[in-house]
Amino acid sequence: MAAQLTAHQLTEKHSPTLFKALEAIATRAYWSPHPEHPKAYGEGSAVDGSLGAAEGKAAFDALLGTRMDLGQPGTDGWVGGSAADGGEVSPYGIELGVSYPHADLDVLLPAMRAAIPAWRDAGPEARAHVCLEILARISARTHEFAHAVMHTSGQAFMMAFQAGGPHAQDRGMEAVAYAYAEQTRTPGAADWSKPQGKRDPLNLRKQFTAVPRGIALMIGCNTFPTWNGYPGLFASLATGNPVVVKPHPRAVLPLALTVQVAREVLAEAGFDPDLVCLAAERPGEGVAKTLALRPEIRIIDYTGSTSFGDWLEANARQAQVYTEKAGVNTVVIDSTADYKGMLSNLAFSLSLYSGQMCTTPQNLLIPRDGITTDAGPKSYDEVVTDLAGAVSGLLGDDARANALLGALVNPDVKARLEAAPGLGEVALPTREVANPDFPDAVVRTPVIVKLDGAKPDAEAAYLSECFGPVSFAVAVDSSADAVELLRRTVRDKGAMTVGAYTTSEEVERAVEEACLEECAQLSLNLTGGVYVNQTAAFSDFHGSGGNPAANAALCDGAFVSNRFRVVEVRREA
Amino acid sequence: MAAQLTAHQLTEKHSPTLFKALEAIATRAYWSPHPEHPKAYGEGSAVDGSLGAAEGKAAFDALLGTRMDLGQPGTDGWVGGSAADGGEVSPYGIELGVSYPHADLDVLLPAMRAAIPAWRDAGPEARAHVCLEILARISARTHEFAHAVMHTSGQAFMMAFQAGGPHAQDRGMEAVAYAYAEQTRTPGAADWSKPQGKRDPLNLRKQFTAVPRGIALMIGCNTFPTWNGYPGLFASLATGNPVVVKPHPRAVLPLALTVQVAREVLAEAGFDPDLVCLAAERPGEGVAKTLALRPEIRIIDYTGSTSFGDWLEANARQAQVYTEKAGVNTVVIDSTADYKGMLSNLAFSLSLYSGQMCTTPQNLLIPRDGITTDAGPKSYDEVVTDLAGAVSGLLGDDARANALLGALVNPDVKARLEAAPGLGEVALPTREVANPDFPDAVVRTPVIVKLDGAKPDAEAAYLSECFGPVSFAVAVDSSADAVELLRRTVRDKGAMTVGAYTTSEEVERAVEEACLEECAQLSLNLTGGVYVNQTAAFSDFHGSGGNPAANAALCDGAFVSNRFRVVEVRREA
Repeated sequence: MAAQLTAHQLTEKHSPTLFKALEAIATRAYWSPHPEHPKAYGEGSAVDGSLGAAEGKAAFDALLGTRMDLGQPGTDGWVGGSAADGGEVSPYGIELGVSYPHADLDVLLPAMRAAIPAWRDAGPEARAHVCLEILARISARTHEFAHAVMHTSGQAFMMAFQAGGPHAQDRGMEAVAYAYAEQTRTPGAADWSKPQGKRDPLNLRKQFTAVPRGIALMIGCNTFPTWNGYPGLFASLATGNPVVVKPHPRAVLPLALTVQVAREVLAEAGFDPDLVCLAAERPGEGVAKTLALRPEIRIIDYTGSTSFGDWLEANARQAQVYTEKAGVNTVVIDSTADYKGMLSNLAFSLSLYSGQMCTTPQNLLIPRDGITTDAGPKSYDEVVTDLAGAVSGLLGDDARANALLGALVNPDVKARLEAAPGLGEVALPTREVANPDFPDAVVRTPVIVKLDGAKPDAEAAYLSECFGPVSFAVAVDSSADAVELLRRTVRDKGAMTVGAYTTSEEVERAVEEACLEECAQLSLNLTGGVYVNQTAAFSDFHGSGGNPAANAALCDGAFVSNRFRVVEVRREA
Repeated sequence: MAAQLTAHQLTEKHSPTLFKALEAIATRAYWSPHPEHPKAYGEGSAVDGSLGAAEGKAAFDALLGTRMDLGQPGTDGWVGGSAADGGEVSPYGIELGVSYPHADLDVLLPAMRAAIPAWRDAGPEARAHVCLEILARISARTHEFAHAVMHTSGQAFMMAFQAGGPHAQDRGMEAVAYAYAEQTRTPGAADWSKPQGKRDPLNLRKQFTAVPRGIALMIGCNTFPTWNGYPGLFASLATGNPVVVKPHPRAVLPLALTVQVAREVLAEAGFDPDLVCLAAERPGEGVAKTLALRPEIRIIDYTGSTSFGDWLEANARQAQVYTEKAGVNTVVIDSTADYKGMLSNLAFSLSLYSGQMCTTPQNLLIPRDGITTDAGPKSYDEVVTDLAGAVSGLLGDDARANALLGALVNPDVKARLEAAPGLGEVALPTREVANPDFPDAVVRTPVIVKLDGAKPDAEAAYLSECFGPVSFAVAVDSSADAVELLRRTVRDKGAMTVGAYTTSEEVERAVEEACLEECAQLSLNLTGGVYVNQTAAFSDFHGSGGNPAANAALCDGAFVSNRFRVVEVRREA
């Protein structure tokens, strides 16, 4: 097929961005090509080809109730559609009604494999530029994606816009940059000449080709379909692997749109669109399990429950498996020089997206004899009461509460929230917040439960992940005890994030040493506008890949280096 | 303890070499700091602190019959010693009689873990320099190591010298270079400043620390204890992990010497010598299995049988497992413009170290209707007869035969050689070669067996690895048939190497495509002084890590990138 997008055009457009991304991952300084503010995309009109707010909303509305035909081979029916048929229902209450192709894997997977050689032969640079064009097209439709993410994850609009849009695109681009850097570490060709004393040297001409492992499977999650999905999707595609995208049944739309854009760009650039396909499923079909064991699948990226992540690691032995599972995130509260700042920072972290982030703190470890602060000594009870007050204050206004909390993503989260008072003394009860725009949305403020760290029956609660707006104020004997519990928690249960507040150099060193030894990412004394549950692509690592919460970090060399192999062909020169 | 070797001294001495190694892995041009010729190390006298030939031999002789006390914690007895006690017996017939410490793992492993923090805090550069000092000390004792490798592997002296000395040291240094490059991709610290429009920017100070996974286990092999052992050993050590070295019971000495040197250098540089320890075992103790399942062991490097490699991959789930297992190496013989060169090149490849290399060709696929050559058309029978003649000619002189063949490493290899005539028509019978220096050495020339590729009963023979001096001249229907069999062999059985001889562009493209798709390293039309079974560090990849013969390649980013993780600590600036 004739390419409408030439390699030259793609290079002109994207190589400057690629080089900036490469520079950013090397310096880890702040950088992003994707604006965070909705107004940057135009207000009600297209700017630079982008959809503005009104256009994006209209585009989303136009999708509702439609059949999204992706033109994939082996489409043997349609899934989704009405709620009765298992279609997506927004946590805000509306039915999306979108139906998606269902794939006959015995047709789809061979078609995807057939696309490999030309994509492999295109080389790392062309692949990177095509990936950046896909991201650019997604970026231009950020407003549309924001609604799709909001109405599948339950995130509030601004968060869906930022985390589901520019931040997800950043993480995708970061993976493309790592993939490009890794593949170009070895040159495409080399002349090798080995001296042989007085005899002629031995001369070889060597060619090195980055070859993909096979088909990659990206299994999406409910809460961050794009943010958690893009790194694996783009890392695999940029390293030459076709990618089959298996979305969470409650969050298909953002990834179906992604697949649609990717297929469009691939075709325009002269490649086989089947390099990116969707595998949506019928209710209860369990296609992730089926796909994960197919011999064609050689790479799997997964975000979700520990049980299925562990199953994948143990059973999908033919594949490289990258998992982000559950963890128990801890904050050590030893002392602070900014009590008010600490409380407001923590209150925001606990509230954002109703605690439904894999990075939200769960256990707040507070010495039972209290802490020292710039506002004088505070007892354990005072700290907990003041934190509860900070959360209540932050969420006192319903409009602000809705903008911060979003909606509960599914009934399991609601059930855990409702069960929380049975675990201990409630320091902060949850309250229902009405959402005037979406009366069926389930919006709840977080609950804080007091637990005594020394009591064995409390341990069962605080040493399990309680995903959602539930946190535990755990009374510990001392800061040293807190550090020991932190260690044990990270080692046994994993953690995506660790926070600590301390003015003591000794405690700071102890917490740092615990995080270095147990391999957890640490935020120290955050009291301003950066929160422990947020990371920035190109600079922060998301997860460490070294504790039970995740076997990979976003994004580093290890995340990309085994998605391809280098094949050498050598000849006498 | 006071360091006798300061960081400054180590930097002065080794940073130029490290930079040259980094340049070499980026250009893949020829480079080595380790001379290949025995005379470069002095002749009977020390040059630059090196042991000359006579000194090296004397040093080796002085080791025989001794107890090698490494000063390790938890030594609870001694293993090895006399042959009756399970001590090493050279394939050349002499008893080494060296005994080694036996470790109580419950004492040894905690001591090794305790050594981690200081080694981690030293940073990637200091670790690289210490590793290069270890390699420099080993290099200075290359003559001594050569005898140790010869009398454990059965390699002839020159091969033991080169492959066990400079080439092994090159592979170790290559791993150090990759480890350094990978760890320094992320800076030690970064300032991050995110604009906030009219408000003050968000400022963070971030620290990034490469942290080791835990204790690494390196499981050595019988045939190339140093060459196959050094990459994993140095990759793990350079990334901050203590390494416990579990040598093959028949090839302890070269690795025990390595551990001794490493401990000496570590102590002199002010680090805990327990960062490198030996775990020699009693006969039948199976300590590799025990160690592999210990929770402290987080990385395993293994070279050996497919069955134990597969067991490690399936069972040592707490560890990153890097394996090199068995494969079936294939050469496609379609046509050649240098018939004589092809025959002599293949004859050498089949003969070197009696075919006991994981890279030795096993199956020679030859069209049953014959091939075209610069010496006219040659029938299948002619090619096989001429190849047999080339091998016989090469090994006709006993002195040369001994210098090329070395000795059979163990009775299993001899048994396979003796069983080979039962598999098909013998085109080249084996012959015994007397070794005047070592009358008990078992020295045999290789056997070539004719098989018909179309016969199902032949398939069982040529589709299994027959490790040792046995190769199969497999008659195939056509070159296209050969390429299909090559594909199937690599996919199902794996291959460390593939060779091909062809003057046809079409066949060349088909073979290349098969190797790219099945992920195998290809040598094309070698007729001179480079052989399919040899690779050069810093330039050639050993294995691909993408077919069943090995899950890793020596050496690339993937070999080092998951041996450490990056822990970030961020604070408001």
